[in-house]
Amino acid sequence: MRFELKTTLTFSDGIEDAEDDVERIILKANDELLSRGVPEEVEDGGAQVKDFSIEQDKLSLKIVSDRYVRAHDAVLRLKKTLNQELGPEYHVGVRKIKIDHYTIQFELDRKAKEDISLPYVKNIKIEGKKCVLNLSGLTEEELSKNYVDRIINRVEEKIEAQYYEGKEEMWELLWKSEEKEMVWEEDPTEVMEERGWIKRGPTKGKWFYRPQAAKILKTLENIVVKEVLKPLGFQEIIESMMVPFDVWIDTGHMEGIPNEAYYISEPVTRNPEEWEEIIDEIKITQKVPSKKLREMTETPKAGICYAQCPVIYWSFKNETISDDSLPVLLFENTVPSTRYESGGRHGIERVDEFHRIEPVYIGTKEQLVELKENLIQRYKHVFENILDIEWRMAKVEPFYLQQAGGKKKEEEMDLGTIDFEAYLPYRGSREKSEWLEFGNLSIFRKYTEAFNIKSQTGKLLSGCTGIGIERWTTAYLAQKGVDPEYWPEKFKGYFGEMPEGIDLL
Amino acid sequence: MRFELKTTLTFSDGIEDAEDDVERIILKANDELLSRGVPEEVEDGGAQVKDFSIEQDKLSLKIVSDRYVRAHDAVLRLKKTLNQELGPEYHVGVRKIKIDHYTIQFELDRKAKEDISLPYVKNIKIEGKKCVLNLSGLTEEELSKNYVDRIINRVEEKIEAQYYEGKEEMWELLWKSEEKEMVWEEDPTEVMEERGWIKRGPTKGKWFYRPQAAKILKTLENIVVKEVLKPLGFQEIIESMMVPFDVWIDTGHMEGIPNEAYYISEPVTRNPEEWEEIIDEIKITQKVPSKKLREMTETPKAGICYAQCPVIYWSFKNETISDDSLPVLLFENTVPSTRYESGGRHGIERVDEFHRIEPVYIGTKEQLVELKENLIQRYKHVFENILDIEWRMAKVEPFYLQQAGGKKKEEEMDLGTIDFEAYLPYRGSREKSEWLEFGNLSIFRKYTEAFNIKSQTGKLLSGCTGIGIERWTTAYLAQKGVDPEYWPEKFKGYFGEMPEGIDLL
Repeated sequence: MRFELKTTLTFSDGIEDAEDDVERIILKANDELLSRGVPEEVEDGGAQVKDFSIEQDKLSLKIVSDRYVRAHDAVLRLKKTLNQELGPEYHVGVRKIKIDHYTIQFELDRKAKEDISLPYVKNIKIEGKKCVLNLSGLTEEELSKNYVDRIINRVEEKIEAQYYEGKEEMWELLWKSEEKEMVWEEDPTEVMEERGWIKRGPTKGKWFYRPQAAKILKTLENIVVKEVLKPLGFQEIIESMMVPFDVWIDTGHMEGIPNEAYYISEPVTRNPEEWEEIIDEIKITQKVPSKKLREMTETPKAGICYAQCPVIYWSFKNETISDDSLPVLLFENTVPSTRYESGGRHGIERVDEFHRIEPVYIGTKEQLVELKENLIQRYKHVFENILDIEWRMAKVEPFYLQQAGGKKKEEEMDLGTIDFEAYLPYRGSREKSEWLEFGNLSIFRKYTEAFNIKSQTGKLLSGCTGIGIERWTTAYLAQKGVDPEYWPEKFKGYFGEMPEGIDLL
Repeated sequence: MRFELKTTLTFSDGIEDAEDDVERIILKANDELLSRGVPEEVEDGGAQVKDFSIEQDKLSLKIVSDRYVRAHDAVLRLKKTLNQELGPEYHVGVRKIKIDHYTIQFELDRKAKEDISLPYVKNIKIEGKKCVLNLSGLTEEELSKNYVDRIINRVEEKIEAQYYEGKEEMWELLWKSEEKEMVWEEDPTEVMEERGWIKRGPTKGKWFYRPQAAKILKTLENIVVKEVLKPLGFQEIIESMMVPFDVWIDTGHMEGIPNEAYYISEPVTRNPEEWEEIIDEIKITQKVPSKKLREMTETPKAGICYAQCPVIYWSFKNETISDDSLPVLLFENTVPSTRYESGGRHGIERVDEFHRIEPVYIGTKEQLVELKENLIQRYKHVFENILDIEWRMAKVEPFYLQQAGGKKKEEEMDLGTIDFEAYLPYRGSREKSEWLEFGNLSIFRKYTEAFNIKSQTGKLLSGCTGIGIERWTTAYLAQKGVDPEYWPEKFKGYFGEMPEGIDLL
């Protein structure tokens, strides 16, 4: 890895008088300051000023470095020492650092398959595994905020993603239930729609659940709470459905799913007088004037809940959890989740707005590995004894890791994610049709780090297990039908009587 | 009421040859067509063409009319008959109608206190109760879509609102409970926040409810369902939290609360490649580039649920409900509601995102008046026997009617709204402090009309009763404190054990 930086430091006044001192400071820095922090075993490591010149109030530098003291860090160090040493005598200080030219050369993990582009990068030259970046337009503040490191990481990630593209998700069968007898082979969404139990919602990808369907969803929620969560000691919390971007930046959702988020836009003002014109227009035309509304609403700064865990992690940000409270076992069952799905007509198993119970757990690795087994046992109990469905478990590589790409993946894989999948007879044979992922269970390292969640003693991990109620409903109804006569007794016990619904002529 | 319209009709070709026929058609129309529909008892009613002239392909008209056939309707009638009569012989038709000058003169209900302005109105002259409007810029389509009527209504409404401004809401005590002994005088929000039971949410006006507080909210929900809704036969439905503008136009929310809505903005595309630049930027800078996001998100076409009833009404739009299903009794307890509240720090009783159970009922007037009494009895049972709180009922004029202003108000008032209010000891004495409105109950005429919801036999009304869980929580805790030792036995029976919560150091 080689950094070559040409930069110009502008002082508050001319420094031609100080040339000798500047030279002395630079030579001293080359000897000591610019190699500080380099591991002992590395010879001649760090940064070096290879060239400098002064004209009036400007000091031009050429700095060459390795990975241990990157050239842009070196110039920040130099700025500080120049200010300290020149200030008292010459009454000058560095006012501005301008990057004239910044070339970074490094070895890639893998060859690139296609050209890539990046912000702040004037050009990228990749030959085999050798990559040369020319950066431009970075300010001093941006240099100090690690933009350069993240640019380099992003190059690696993008190349990694080129290999990843189109590849199948890792999938490994862990367990599967016995084959069960299917009550029918219909698509439950279609049948419920025909019966008027559900109705397509007023906006894309949403449903209106009339009493019969609503009761099925609520019954499944109730079963999850009573048979899975309460026995394991999970406590319910209620969060906001609005997630500000800084929380999604900490979880990685902001970079992972910006194209799938529903965004929230606030009024620019609550003052009714400033809305009078738009109100007049609505009253007269019975339409909303789109351009005026755009002016009266803010650019989004938050999105609607995509998964409930980010805000739960946020609630622990920078907190130290008492050992007595570990493992922390919480669940959220109040806010709906949204995903901006692709067009076309889908059933309730693929929607833009849905309902999920999201249990989140935080604890030591030992605690969470034990919990994982307990959760699997409780799920198994529900799927086998109450819903009596045909299902299987598989170890998979979760979606967000594909999005993140690259290095983060490996360190997560030992903890990993389990998917729960159900057979949907309306899709075809057991062997050839796609089973429905109707739940999952994961343990992560990254969120406790991202939110700086600490314990009194050791390192904490976290995890969550998503229980998508529409998907549970699809899995159940696709196998058991919509006629309670054929439903398992224990489910019926939870369900009670089928509601009368509303007769529409 | 007097309408004077100067308008120019442009034909597809010159019509100077047809002058005699045009004159004949106009004279005939003056005699018959332009007074069609005028009530018999009105003499010389309708519209009259007072003047006309032809130049090449243009026919200029001056039309004067009364309220029975407004001048802009007259010109649309004339267009049709001119096309029919001139078409066969001269092979011409009207291509365009241009409004050169449109003056409308009418009597106001009340004198204006201040000047008013309106879209499509060049100037308004008000002298005493006489109002003269000069309209401009209306297209033929807009004329045919009743813009003129709504402009006139809006003038009346705006003047009405001038009288309304600053006036107190109508409030009339209907009933009040006995004085009860208060456990404490603390603000429950403050105490819960100190104890870590709640935490301010990551965005303005939202809360994060930790296990202890969440259990209180969920217990109240459970009590409402078991003690109020189930005994009366309400069935649960689940709706989408996203409400498209056309639904809010039908309910009147769009013109009533556009300054208080949280809006939803969708991605302009779901294609990840088109998001790559923004993702690069987020990964490198750890910030969301606001301008680029604005470009990548749509102008809102929907808002987040403000109250649950609009989407329930929408689900019945244009439907005929079987008499067997009347009264329809439904409730929604799944989607959170939002209101863009003014700044400042408030407790959980005034928030931007909250949880409401919204029962909605549709039926005949008799059915709903009976239901209203039954609901009040069930509420009374809960407030007295389970929560044991000090509360009162008052007849009030609902907020939306103030917003709507004007005429709609009167026709609603015989049905009206009841507010449930609770004494909050932390606000001061019973007599001088403001009690908390923690629920309400209404019956309306307008929604079944707006959504064209029909029965087999008679006219349907509708209504709803909002149960704001955060407000119930505030009412209960403000009187009963946060220590279960002092809670009424029946509430404790529903609540069970206080959750352990999470210890943070």
